Amino acid sequence: MTMSTREQEVLDRIERVRKRRPKVKEERITLAHGSGGKATQTLIEAVFLDAFSNPMLDRLEDAAELSVNETRLALTTDSFVVSPLFFPGGNIGDLAVNGTVNDLAVSGAKPLYLTAGFILEEGFPVADLIRIVASMKAAADAAGVSIVTGDTKVVQRGKADGCYINTAGVGVVRCPGRLGAATVQPGDAVLVSGSIGDHGVTVMLARGELDIEADLVSDTAPVHDLVATLLAATPGVRAMRDATRGGVATILNEVAKAADVAVVVDEDKVPVGTEVRGASELLGIDPLYVACEGRIVVFVAGAEAETALDALRSHPLGREAALIGRVKADPPGLVLLNTTFGGTRICDLLVGDPLPRIC
Amino acid sequence: MTMSTREQEVLDRIERVRKRRPKVKEERITLAHGSGGKATQTLIEAVFLDAFSNPMLDRLEDAAELSVNETRLALTTDSFVVSPLFFPGGNIGDLAVNGTVNDLAVSGAKPLYLTAGFILEEGFPVADLIRIVASMKAAADAAGVSIVTGDTKVVQRGKADGCYINTAGVGVVRCPGRLGAATVQPGDAVLVSGSIGDHGVTVMLARGELDIEADLVSDTAPVHDLVATLLAATPGVRAMRDATRGGVATILNEVAKAADVAVVVDEDKVPVGTEVRGASELLGIDPLYVACEGRIVVFVAGAEAETALDALRSHPLGREAALIGRVKADPPGLVLLNTTFGGTRICDLLVGDPLPRIC
Repeated sequence: MTMSTREQEVLDRIERVRKRRPKVKEERITLAHGSGGKATQTLIEAVFLDAFSNPMLDRLEDAAELSVNETRLALTTDSFVVSPLFFPGGNIGDLAVNGTVNDLAVSGAKPLYLTAGFILEEGFPVADLIRIVASMKAAADAAGVSIVTGDTKVVQRGKADGCYINTAGVGVVRCPGRLGAATVQPGDAVLVSGSIGDHGVTVMLARGELDIEADLVSDTAPVHDLVATLLAATPGVRAMRDATRGGVATILNEVAKAADVAVVVDEDKVPVGTEVRGASELLGIDPLYVACEGRIVVFVAGAEAETALDALRSHPLGREAALIGRVKADPPGLVLLNTTFGGTRICDLLVGDPLPRIC
Repeated sequence: MTMSTREQEVLDRIERVRKRRPKVKEERITLAHGSGGKATQTLIEAVFLDAFSNPMLDRLEDAAELSVNETRLALTTDSFVVSPLFFPGGNIGDLAVNGTVNDLAVSGAKPLYLTAGFILEEGFPVADLIRIVASMKAAADAAGVSIVTGDTKVVQRGKADGCYINTAGVGVVRCPGRLGAATVQPGDAVLVSGSIGDHGVTVMLARGELDIEADLVSDTAPVHDLVATLLAATPGVRAMRDATRGGVATILNEVAKAADVAVVVDEDKVPVGTEVRGASELLGIDPLYVACEGRIVVFVAGAEAETALDALRSHPLGREAALIGRVKADPPGLVLLNTTFGGTRICDLLVGDPLPRIC
């Protein structure tokens, strides 16, 4: 198959997906629209894609790939509204840097430059802002990026919740046009780089709404180096995503839909820490839907699954990496879970939002 | 003077300015920290520059100039928290696009790609979001930019005010390293591209807090084409800024400080519409401090003042352009206003925030 036929096939696939776009039924925004799940995707497709549609945006990757002169760039943005602002293992500052660094990294780009936009609530302690900013600086240094421009707005008391941060990031693309959810094929293997759900459960517990004591910290970390290690060892990587809002299950659904394939996951191969498992049971949620902030999901050509796994495990952030499933042709667009108890069930996008404001 | 001596001089000037950095005295964030005035600048210098300092950020231009491979890029960001969201002449959507387009344009870059990050309050009407998004698309088309990536977060009722938008923008630099506030010199002329304060007064009146009827609309507009016209005609342009939050007076102060020069402005040469003048008197504020969203302040070599004025006036957005002042050596760092009544007074940065949430 020539490259241009392949590209055409990807474009056709995107077009087929576009035609299936749903409508927003609600008259008002709900928390579920921010969950990363079904309502978020409907909002994105029915409102944002409908208006802004262009080939860069329509791919719906974590970062857009674009050209300036002869240079291929990746551009991404994320707003952070996590509550509480400080939690074991991190705060909104390093989260905001790592989140954008990771969106660039999983798009196959080397992260270079970040912007930082602050929306502060009147009355917010300056000492907390200084702490957050120091964490941002440390995270930027760890990821090898510079924060080169920014903006600060202040709103009246009761019009925000302390501090919201937006970061946008620019990186240089390592392998132009090669990576992307739409390139995933039947036969590919599905890997995760470590135990899932630590960040989401940590933030939930930090809110103090649950009477659980757990020795748990957020997994927030920059994955740029892990990704570079993986890509250097494994030419057959098709797509990567960081499993943030909506967790691993949401990523798997996004890819199944974008590539028009089935993703079949073995539940007992998914690494979940005992404390995350316990807390998830109490919260009544599946760890597969709980956000991580330093874990990636990797789709790789089946023949290179072991190579990819070894590459991930060779890195400190990927020591607990696991092969969790395979891509099949049918049923297209669905994620199937082979459960620990021997059954198989559809693992769909979440409808509500069990864990709001986790990032 | 060789180019490298000149560059060294600019760097020295930046270093001198850095050493004068103040400290944040307040323990908590106030609305004034978001005004664009004195408190904002203190916050930026004492908190953000202190942590993030790097040569790209330290210049404190509207956009950072940076290199990726051999390509010179401009990168900028702004969050928008305007209240009300809809006002005569525009809404938060086109404001968010034009604001970032303009920050790129006045930095001498051709705007290319935008990101869009939404923070929505639970309960926000979907129909309003669709209207805002449609305005963003129209504004992006008018400015020749694509919105290529985005993000949506939702916070609980009472944790935002309907809709906040962050945009970041990437452009390609037209004249690398040449433009910048620190390059302004004694003898330069100061121009504005049109009547000032229309946006700020329009938004104030749209809040309905004042019992004034005025047939006024926001000046929100993309200035990329106006800037291109100006730069093509006038090689001696030293620096441009769009006079948003804090108005023309704030820009003049920023430049006076960055270039270590005096800026002397003739009050009666500053174009102010009769309705803006009237409303400003009632509000007790000087139009020089009121935000515009489609006006630029231009610093140009004195000998090219008329050329620049003609170039601005040849463009629909610059028909009312005016030469409002001159740059002098002394007193360095200050803006002096020759008043209509024949006196001279210092036109300093504002201390409070008379017009919060204007953008």
